[in-house]
Amino acid sequence: MPQKNIYSDFSQNQLFEEKQKLTNVFGEYKAKNLKLNMTRGVPCKEQLDLSNPMLKMDLSEIDYSSKDAGDCRNYGGLTGIVEAREMFRDLTGAGSVNEIMLFGNSSLNIMHDNIVRSMLLGVYEGSTPWSKLGDNQKPKFLCPVPGYDRHFSICEYYGIEMINIKLNSDGPDMDEVEKLVNGDPLVKGIWCVPKYSNPDGITYSDEVVKRLADLSPAADDFRIYYDNAYFVHDLTDEGDALLDILAELKKNKKEDMLNMFISTSKITFAGGGICALVASEKNIKYISSKVFIQTIGPDKLNQLRHAVFLKDKAGIKAHMAKHREILKPKFEAVNIGLEKNLGGTNLAKWNKPNGGYFISLFVPENCAKKTIALAAELGVALTPAGSTYPYKKDPDDSNIRIAPTFPSIDDLTLAVDALCVCIKLAYIESLTA
Amino acid sequence: MPQKNIYSDFSQNQLFEEKQKLTNVFGEYKAKNLKLNMTRGVPCKEQLDLSNPMLKMDLSEIDYSSKDAGDCRNYGGLTGIVEAREMFRDLTGAGSVNEIMLFGNSSLNIMHDNIVRSMLLGVYEGSTPWSKLGDNQKPKFLCPVPGYDRHFSICEYYGIEMINIKLNSDGPDMDEVEKLVNGDPLVKGIWCVPKYSNPDGITYSDEVVKRLADLSPAADDFRIYYDNAYFVHDLTDEGDALLDILAELKKNKKEDMLNMFISTSKITFAGGGICALVASEKNIKYISSKVFIQTIGPDKLNQLRHAVFLKDKAGIKAHMAKHREILKPKFEAVNIGLEKNLGGTNLAKWNKPNGGYFISLFVPENCAKKTIALAAELGVALTPAGSTYPYKKDPDDSNIRIAPTFPSIDDLTLAVDALCVCIKLAYIESLTA
Repeated sequence: MPQKNIYSDFSQNQLFEEKQKLTNVFGEYKAKNLKLNMTRGVPCKEQLDLSNPMLKMDLSEIDYSSKDAGDCRNYGGLTGIVEAREMFRDLTGAGSVNEIMLFGNSSLNIMHDNIVRSMLLGVYEGSTPWSKLGDNQKPKFLCPVPGYDRHFSICEYYGIEMINIKLNSDGPDMDEVEKLVNGDPLVKGIWCVPKYSNPDGITYSDEVVKRLADLSPAADDFRIYYDNAYFVHDLTDEGDALLDILAELKKNKKEDMLNMFISTSKITFAGGGICALVASEKNIKYISSKVFIQTIGPDKLNQLRHAVFLKDKAGIKAHMAKHREILKPKFEAVNIGLEKNLGGTNLAKWNKPNGGYFISLFVPENCAKKTIALAAELGVALTPAGSTYPYKKDPDDSNIRIAPTFPSIDDLTLAVDALCVCIKLAYIESLTA
Repeated sequence: MPQKNIYSDFSQNQLFEEKQKLTNVFGEYKAKNLKLNMTRGVPCKEQLDLSNPMLKMDLSEIDYSSKDAGDCRNYGGLTGIVEAREMFRDLTGAGSVNEIMLFGNSSLNIMHDNIVRSMLLGVYEGSTPWSKLGDNQKPKFLCPVPGYDRHFSICEYYGIEMINIKLNSDGPDMDEVEKLVNGDPLVKGIWCVPKYSNPDGITYSDEVVKRLADLSPAADDFRIYYDNAYFVHDLTDEGDALLDILAELKKNKKEDMLNMFISTSKITFAGGGICALVASEKNIKYISSKVFIQTIGPDKLNQLRHAVFLKDKAGIKAHMAKHREILKPKFEAVNIGLEKNLGGTNLAKWNKPNGGYFISLFVPENCAKKTIALAAELGVALTPAGSTYPYKKDPDDSNIRIAPTFPSIDDLTLAVDALCVCIKLAYIESLTA
């Protein structure tokens, strides 16, 4: 945080008056009995409506069949139907459909299962399961922060030690990443949201991607957990460009190092999409041999619906343009609100991402918890403070994640105004406490 | 097997002649270049067609919404929509919807995840994860045999020792079960398919269910894995009656001992159904707290489709009557074929189940492998010998699982005729070898 801000030169009296004024405004907001929710990255109704045709399409016209897996109503097709794999191949830089395996509706679930499989069966055939590393040999994951709470929860539950890595404006601090990955055989993974990171909206630079793709891990079962959740989720016409990591890895003959995860949760239906793992053929072969034990196969009917509805790369791009129309004004409303209330105060900084689902706001140190508690009093729900850090511990107590997609623009404007009062009040209280 | 059979009094010459005759018939079948598959319990096209209306229903009429989970297109609703839970409650003896949790399309996947969770996190809050039992402390599961290969594969993969239990005509040998469960704290579970068991089609008697419900396990984290896969899958109007185990457990205050699994895979779509875990409220509470780490929630749209299409208990019963019309003649065709070819020979015995998906055939000892290999030569694919036993080891090499649901009646008749030739030939070869 900058040292000097709007209140730096205030006298004690002035601070007291300002606090009184803010407390009054706070009271006015409280009287409104607001009920506004900006906690999670949830699509709004208008976004969901875009995919309604998918629910009524007549699949009898194609006999409910996929090219390679036959009747999608029946069992089988463990790795998913080829039509949908082709679609994702063209969007992710995968060289072949054999580098793509489809699953159900939750990419988080694939990540979870990859971790669990690594714990019990090992990352590749013959590797030591992490649960058998021996006493005091806990696996470790690197966690660029702030990051996605659900990634961190998985690690916490399974006793995987998390190490914070600074997320710079071009991606994780690669000096630190290289030192730890290349030096410590217990470092088994790194969580990455490489495009429009959650919550900062940062896209990794070409250099960062190249360095990630050329890691020389001390652990031979190290994997990059590449959660490409927002791979086609641009808020501008161009969007950020993300270098194709699979191509880079292949150049270095290190493609087995990647587990990339994508889904249509924020393309079609958040609860009823499909998701995919993108990895080397060798990895897919191993993983599918283990998933074979777990299930007879994924819901291919939903995969077929998706393939027919979204068609191909161009179809997805066109569909995402419709999301953009809905979302862009919402992100702008938050930016306008933050600028109006906090611009020039030096009390906070925030990112203006070109895509993704969040705006990451940094308030003065030791003020995030207090701000979020005050906002809750006003009926403005925000993700709990600390959530964007491993073990829910924000070392600066400074980061607040704003999720602008679900509320209406009016609600967002109101919520941001209210939030900014809370930020100021929390800070002034910290000064006068 | 009975000691005396049709060939018992044959002279060496007669056996040789019979072998020659059978070899000729075998050759005739071979010339037909058959391609018949009876390996898996897979619904046929006509069965799948019964649920096609589900794929075209207009969910906009109910605003894509469930009573408790709101917009099913969006995130949330971890335990599943209440409409579908009500439907299963009325079919399973669950006392409340809080005893039911819905998942995706694969009940096998829930079973798998329950095992994995037990390995890494423990069966209940505070219990010792099985992966931390200590050296040489392998968890054990009791496996009534013959049984379902996929159950056994899960145990095998995760190093859970399997103990064969004789499956009598009224269920597992409960003397043996009680001795092991009540005496050995490493016995953590038992696999049960209580109605129309896979492959025998046996339904557990009231006494067996009562004794199961009154086990006093040495392990406080013992669970009955009750795979009620065929709970509404009757082949006769009445069907077999299965005592309500949850009610029995509650009488004994032992309801935490149960994990019941059901699905609509063989009600609606094998690949696109929904499935559920039925357990005590305490168990559901614990399990959902862990599944929370794993996923944001199941595909509620598919749950909604199912609830609207199947409606309630009466709706499911009526729907299953349509399956019965399709399946009954198929099971009869197999029975007729077996009777025609093997009746009175004392060479084989088989069950005539009142429901389920299989006919279990016992051929002379040491002849199952050989029979299946011969059938494969004729283009008749059967589940590999041994599959119905842990570690794929049928101690008698005698059991063959026939899956009559997928092929047409003509194909079934042909396949059974061919199979019976193979049985006789395998047996005669064993005598003359």
